[in-house]
Amino acid sequence: MQQDPFVPPASAFTRSVPIRFSHCDPAGIVYFPHYFNMFNGLIEDWYTEELGYNYAEIIMGSQYGFPFVHIECDFKIPSRMGDVIDLTLLVERLGRSSLGVAVVCHRDGVERLRARMVTAMMSIATRQPVPLPQPLREAIEAYRQRTTPYKSAPAERSI
Amino acid sequence: MQQDPFVPPASAFTRSVPIRFSHCDPAGIVYFPHYFNMFNGLIEDWYTEELGYNYAEIIMGSQYGFPFVHIECDFKIPSRMGDVIDLTLLVERLGRSSLGVAVVCHRDGVERLRARMVTAMMSIATRQPVPLPQPLREAIEAYRQRTTPYKSAPAERSI
Amino acid sequence: MQQDPFVPPASAFTRSVPIRFSHCDPAGIVYFPHYFNMFNGLIEDWYTEELGYNYAEIIMGSQYGFPFVHIECDFKIPSRMGDVIDLTLLVERLGRSSLGVAVVCHRDGVERLRARMVTAMMSIATRQPVPLPQPLREAIEAYRQRTTPYKSAPAERSI
Amino acid sequence: MQQDPFVPPASAFTRSVPIRFSHCDPAGIVYFPHYFNMFNGLIEDWYTEELGYNYAEIIMGSQYGFPFVHIECDFKIPSRMGDVIDLTLLVERLGRSSLGVAVVCHRDGVERLRARMVTAMMSIATRQPVPLPQPLREAIEAYRQRTTPYKSAPAERSI
Repeated sequence: MQQDPFVPPASAFTRSVPIRFSHCDPAGIVYFPHYFNMFNGLIEDWYTEELGYNYAEIIMGSQYGFPFVHIECDFKIPSRMGDVIDLTLLVERLGRSSLGVAVVCHRDGVERLRARMVTAMMSIATRQPVPLPQPLREAIEAYRQRTTPYKSAPAERSI
Repeated sequence: MQQDPFVPPASAFTRSVPIRFSHCDPAGIVYFPHYFNMFNGLIEDWYTEELGYNYAEIIMGSQYGFPFVHIECDFKIPSRMGDVIDLTLLVERLGRSSLGVAVVCHRDGVERLRARMVTAMMSIATRQPVPLPQPLREAIEAYRQRTTPYKSAPAERSI
Repeated sequence: MQQDPFVPPASAFTRSVPIRFSHCDPAGIVYFPHYFNMFNGLIEDWYTEELGYNYAEIIMGSQYGFPFVHIECDFKIPSRMGDVIDLTLLVERLGRSSLGVAVVCHRDGVERLRARMVTAMMSIATRQPVPLPQPLREAIEAYRQRTTPYKSAPAERSI
Repeated sequence: MQQDPFVPPASAFTRSVPIRFSHCDPAGIVYFPHYFNMFNGLIEDWYTEELGYNYAEIIMGSQYGFPFVHIECDFKIPSRMGDVIDLTLLVERLGRSSLGVAVVCHRDGVERLRARMVTAMMSIATRQPVPLPQPLREAIEAYRQRTTPYKSAPAERSI
């Protein structure tokens, strides 16, 4: 079993999730689709609590959606009922409509799984991508910069 | 729409749950099976945090289960993404192996839905009911008494 | 464990569901909220295949919803991965907006669990109950009559 | 929106799945974790119906598990309630303990999403990978060959 160390950047958005009976399968470990529910919840809370954008209001009020266009996930160490896992969100790239984040699931300094997830902002009415609003983009970019532990190339890409 | 007031007893076990995107259906309200996940989580936390019994340890360590034998639920007021609901657990009856609880979902003093759920303690190995251990029974009975706002008949029944 | 015999009426709507890994919990049996998903799917298929009303079209096209207002369920015999269970829908009552059905889960002539579920037809826009359309009501009533094995009192009630 | 054509190889394992109310989110499209449930179900059915290995028996009887170690998914065209989608399983690689499959979700000759999923066969007791049994490996390899539309390099890799 791999033992990849992970220490989240100081100001990174991290939330703890208790592993419950309802998450676990007949082998006693988390049934993997539940992780994606947890990750989606983390992204919601990050919008609302870290970026200052009420996620429910964006979806239900303004009628935008953030469907996923790409997901990758490496499962390294399984989690069991009674474990408490930490989920940290990092911004990987920021496009015109798209946002790529990494969600790292870790505990006690060891990475348990890592997902890379790309969403695109869409109008629910037209079903077309829309550009991320400038203030939202700036809030995301500021988060990216304060959580990037090393000097990096600009994250802007055209999508 | 009914507006039933609900104020939980002072020492009742209550936890708040944010309604997330993942809970909601195409009509924008909580898809009802998700409530049962939330109720199961509440019961877990009540065992662990209120009664002092680690629920995960009882299941995974001692190999007991608490399958539901009966559920009833009245849905009164729907909840939407972005709502935060409060869940309160009340003990309704205590049998030899069985435990009947009410879970009341409420917000701002108004009841949104109420479930009555009966579990039976089982051995996972033998698939037979087992008596609730005496110290657990006493902890449950003490909780019942301190959260019952009125004089009541004894809760013991034989099952 | 109870062994209640169940033989569905000859023309009752029955569908089989395989119990999958994803349905099962650490004790190796179906985690109960999954049953409600299965029951909801049965109701969908009953509308579409038995009554001739496309359920998706009623919801997404006509913008009606069928939220549950009451659910009761008795769990008698657990099901395990690899089991195939049969689900039979019976109409119990028909109100102005409301429909009460029983879903019986059975296998090899033995009842495993039985749910009684009451829905109300609602307008998604106004969030108010609407009367069941007359042709739909007649289709439901005809189904009720052809699947009721005994002479019964009229099912109409005002709600 | 991309329109990638997809025609499954003649003898590929394909199952249809109706998109239900329970799959859909407030935007009216499938909430993405549900796809992974569908894919897991497809893999189960493929073992049982195509390869002749009872999946439930391998898990519950022989106490092996097939946890995912890697997942990638590209979401191209969303699906809505009432759609019926086709899921086709293709084998991409076969390691000592690991199996890489592609699940292609398509409809009317157009690809809607594609996942690449790698599992490893594990002993539930020891939590260690075990080699795929030789007859199972041969059945998988035979499936791979009869569903590969072009001459390909050997799929064996060491993992």
